[in-house]
Amino acid sequence: MTKVRLGIVGAGIASRELHLPALRKLDELYEITAVNSRTVEKAEDFARLVGTNPRIFRSYDDMLGSGEIDAVVLAVPISLNPGMIKRAVEAKVPVICEKPVAPNISAATEMLALSREAMVYIAENYRHIPVYREAAKMVSQGKIGRPVVFSWQKWVAFGRDNKYVQTGWRQSPKHIGGFISDGGVHDMAALRAVLGEVLEVSGFSARNFDFLGAEDTAIFNIRLESGVTGDYSVFYGSPVARNRLDIVGDEAMISIDKDMAELTISGNRKERILVNKSDGFVEEFRDFYRVLNGQKNVLGSVLEALKDLAIVEAGLLSSKERKIVGVGGLLMGSDLR
Amino acid sequence: MTKVRLGIVGAGIASRELHLPALRKLDELYEITAVNSRTVEKAEDFARLVGTNPRIFRSYDDMLGSGEIDAVVLAVPISLNPGMIKRAVEAKVPVICEKPVAPNISAATEMLALSREAMVYIAENYRHIPVYREAAKMVSQGKIGRPVVFSWQKWVAFGRDNKYVQTGWRQSPKHIGGFISDGGVHDMAALRAVLGEVLEVSGFSARNFDFLGAEDTAIFNIRLESGVTGDYSVFYGSPVARNRLDIVGDEAMISIDKDMAELTISGNRKERILVNKSDGFVEEFRDFYRVLNGQKNVLGSVLEALKDLAIVEAGLLSSKERKIVGVGGLLMGSDLR
Repeated sequence: MTKVRLGIVGAGIASRELHLPALRKLDELYEITAVNSRTVEKAEDFARLVGTNPRIFRSYDDMLGSGEIDAVVLAVPISLNPGMIKRAVEAKVPVICEKPVAPNISAATEMLALSREAMVYIAENYRHIPVYREAAKMVSQGKIGRPVVFSWQKWVAFGRDNKYVQTGWRQSPKHIGGFISDGGVHDMAALRAVLGEVLEVSGFSARNFDFLGAEDTAIFNIRLESGVTGDYSVFYGSPVARNRLDIVGDEAMISIDKDMAELTISGNRKERILVNKSDGFVEEFRDFYRVLNGQKNVLGSVLEALKDLAIVEAGLLSSKERKIVGVGGLLMGSDLR
Repeated sequence: MTKVRLGIVGAGIASRELHLPALRKLDELYEITAVNSRTVEKAEDFARLVGTNPRIFRSYDDMLGSGEIDAVVLAVPISLNPGMIKRAVEAKVPVICEKPVAPNISAATEMLALSREAMVYIAENYRHIPVYREAAKMVSQGKIGRPVVFSWQKWVAFGRDNKYVQTGWRQSPKHIGGFISDGGVHDMAALRAVLGEVLEVSGFSARNFDFLGAEDTAIFNIRLESGVTGDYSVFYGSPVARNRLDIVGDEAMISIDKDMAELTISGNRKERILVNKSDGFVEEFRDFYRVLNGQKNVLGSVLEALKDLAIVEAGLLSSKERKIVGVGGLLMGSDLR
C-alpha cells in the first residue's frame, strides 16, 4: 500500500492539534512531505512538530506544482477556502479542506463545478463522529418510533482567552455569523445525518458580547423535509457548557450527548449506550484515503458541505429579513439576490 | 369578614378537580351558593360534591339575576368565555373566568372594554405558582446575571385516555391550536412573569396525532422586548414527560422544573431551591377575594390574559403565513385582517 504524500497548508490550531494527531495514527496511509504557511516561522515550527523533515514551501502554488505531494490539506482561514480549493483543482491536486467550504453560499457557487473536475473533500469531521453515526442508526432502526420533535441546546463556554476566540481571523470574521457558522455547520451536518434534510428555517440571532467577533447567540427554528420540527439554540460565551440533542419520537426519546459520547433512550423503551469518544478526524482521513483510492466521495462531498452552510445562512438571513427562509432556494442562491 | 357567595358555572374537570379543592381550603372567604351547568345532572352531581346544598340554576341568566351570588366562577368550554363574561358584566356581577380569555384574539376584542365596566378576573393560575414567582424574583435579583437565552422543553405525555383529551369540546376545539393555546397561555404567562414582555414570534406547528383535536406540536422561536431570545418546544402526545425552562444568563443558568417545583442555578454560582408545589389555585382565589374587596386587579387582568394568548396566536399565525409575527400588532388585531 503506497503512502499518500500530503502537503499541509496552514499551521494553526487545526493542523497542529486536530489533523497532526490523527495523521500520526494513520502513518501507514499518509506521510507529510510538504508544509506551507503564510508565516514561514509557523511553517518551520510545524515542520519541527511533524518531525519527518517535510519540505517547507513559501508559495502555495509552488507546492501544488512541485510533484512532491499527492494531495493537499487546507486548514486556513475560512474566507480563503474557495480560492485555495480552486487553485488546487486547477493544479489537478486532490484537496481535503476544513469546513465550512466557504464564508457564505454565494462565495461557494463555483465549488460544486470544481469538485467535478478534481477531487475536493470537505473535512466535516462531525459526519465521522461515532455518537452521531450510532444515533442515526438507532433512529433509522425505529428505536424512538417516528421522530416528531428535536431540541438542541448547544451552549458553549467560550471566554476571552479561549484559543479559538483568540484567532485573529475569527475576531474579525469574513464568514457569516462568526462562530454561529464556524461551529454551526458541524451541528447541521450531525442533525442531517440523524434526521435527514432541512426544508426551512426561521431564526433569531443576536450579538451579546464584544469579544466573539460577530453574532454569538442564535435560535434556529428548523423544519425538516420529513415534517419533523425542532430548535437549535446556540450561545457562545455561556457560563455553562451543554451540547445535548434531544429527539422525541412517538415511542421514545433519544438524548445525544456529544461530549460524553453518550446515547440515552427513554420513554416506552430504555437504553443507554456509551460509544467511542473519537472526534472523527482519524475516521475522516481514513475515508479520504479510500476516496483517493477510488471510493465514491459521500461524506466529504461539496454538496453536503453546502447544505450544512445553507441551513446556518438561512437562519441568519431569517433573523435579518424577518421571514421563514427555505434552504433549497438559498442553495440556488435565489434568496441572496 | 363576610363570605363571598359564589355561583359556579360548569361542572367539568376544572370546577370539580381544580376549583372546588381550592375553595374548600378557603371556606372562610367563600361559600358556593349556586351552581349552573348545561346538563342538569352534572349540576346536581356537582352540588352533591359541594355538600352545602347550593341552589341549582337551569339558566345562567337567572343565576346572574338571582341576587343570591356576589360573584360568578366560569369554568366552561373556551369558546363560551367571551359571551358568558359579557352577560356577567351586563348583570353587574363580578366574574372570575378560566383561561384562555377567548378562543382567539379577534373574539376577545370586547373583553378589555367590558373589564372596565365590571370586575373581570381571568383565572391564570400560573401567575400564582410559587416556582415561577420565585424564579422571577431570582432573575430580577440578578442571580444569573443578564438573561441571554431561554429554552423551554414542554413535552406532555397525553394518551388517548387522558381526561382532558376525552373532553368533547377539546376533541373538536373552537379555540386556536387546541392544546397549544389551552396549555400555552399558561406557559406564556409564566415566561412573561420571569423574563418580561414578548416582542415577536416565529413558529412552526404541526398535527401529528388524530386524537388531540388540532395542532399537537409546535416550536415557537420567541424574541423578548429585552432582546432575550429563546425557544418554546411543545409536544402533546409525547412518550416522555418534561416541563423544564432553562434560562442562561451571562453569569449563570437557572433551570425551572415546574413538576418538581425545583429551581437550580448552575454556572459561576450554584444553588438549588425547592418551593411549595402548589398549582396556584388557592393563591389565585385568595387574590380574587382581595380584588373583590378593592385591591387593583393585576394578576387577573384581561390585558395580561390577552398578552398570553397573543403570543400563542402569533406563533400559530407565523407557521401559517411563513413570517415573523409581532405580538403588539396582533393585539391590535392588525395581523389578523
